[in-house]
Amino acid sequence: MDYYSSQISKLIESLASLPGIGIKSAQRLAFHILDMPQAEVEALANSMIDAKRNICYCKQCYTLTDHEICPICKNPDRNQKQIMVVENPRDLAAYEKTGKFEGVYHVLHGAISPMLGIGPSDIKLQELMQRLHGDVDEVIIATNSSLEGETTAMYISKLIKPTGIKVTRIASGVPVGGDLEYIDEVTLLRALEGRVEL
Amino acid sequence: MDYYSSQISKLIESLASLPGIGIKSAQRLAFHILDMPQAEVEALANSMIDAKRNICYCKQCYTLTDHEICPICKNPDRNQKQIMVVENPRDLAAYEKTGKFEGVYHVLHGAISPMLGIGPSDIKLQELMQRLHGDVDEVIIATNSSLEGETTAMYISKLIKPTGIKVTRIASGVPVGGDLEYIDEVTLLRALEGRVEL
Repeated sequence: MDYYSSQISKLIESLASLPGIGIKSAQRLAFHILDMPQAEVEALANSMIDAKRNICYCKQCYTLTDHEICPICKNPDRNQKQIMVVENPRDLAAYEKTGKFEGVYHVLHGAISPMLGIGPSDIKLQELMQRLHGDVDEVIIATNSSLEGETTAMYISKLIKPTGIKVTRIASGVPVGGDLEYIDEVTLLRALEGRVEL
Repeated sequence: MDYYSSQISKLIESLASLPGIGIKSAQRLAFHILDMPQAEVEALANSMIDAKRNICYCKQCYTLTDHEICPICKNPDRNQKQIMVVENPRDLAAYEKTGKFEGVYHVLHGAISPMLGIGPSDIKLQELMQRLHGDVDEVIIATNSSLEGETTAMYISKLIKPTGIKVTRIASGVPVGGDLEYIDEVTLLRALEGRVEL
């Protein structure tokens, strides 16, 4: 790419290394950044550096936060005895958006995947088990409905059951507003298996 | 978005302000950046700041460069008498990739668009006319084949013709490898109009 100056090429390469950004998008972004006012570029760059420098794992639930204990864990109105286990902070945010869950979370930072060589010790599972020594009523497993998510859910439930703590799994089924004809067979079967009496 | 820490929210907002990046992609990028090693994040951020600080317009062709005159304009092997007019540096790069054009460029940084209120004085057109006072044989107009690009091409050709300099337009037609049945009618008509004898 010597038809750009070396600094533009470097910027394009850096951007293209981000997930979901190909070389064409990276070029478009790079030229957009060069068109932005200097102050805005610095604000964007600094927001990256600042976030990276100051964000760490919550000591209790392992979500990303800029405090030692995250605002959710610190909130006295949240039910500390109900723990929802999610794969990553994005999933936590998705449930927080519903505004209806009043318990706390535990972020695994991944899911068990023998295919990718990710075992139980590679995710924050031991940390979850340690939390269960405290006063916990229920662990709600909200890992994804993928092969890895289901494997992880199964593994965790087997691990927790002997402790006598209630373990639940979020329901699988037809999404609200979903049109049956466009939904895959596995989901349709799950929805049938999980049918409830009206 | 108070379920993220304020610094994560700020990063997500900054990323989402870039073109082609929605809120979901911005979230994915933000969490990816937080997972990257500190040194890589700083390298990415600095590549933005450095590029913005050091990149300016080439004094001759107005492409983006980190020199006063860009490497293409400075190259004694390029034909300075043949100027290809393009809308932006990405288009210049696209032609440079072919490796076959031996002339120099002129980057307009836009195209005339009455709809968007972009007139001839908003692009580097006066700068092009000034270059024509020198020794120029041909101006090749390689603006896009869009409404704006065609308008700009027409406008420039009318402006240059009285000077006696040869003005040409890159050919419109069926892309190489293009399947006729998937090509729009306007392109098909253009290809017919522009047919050449074999």
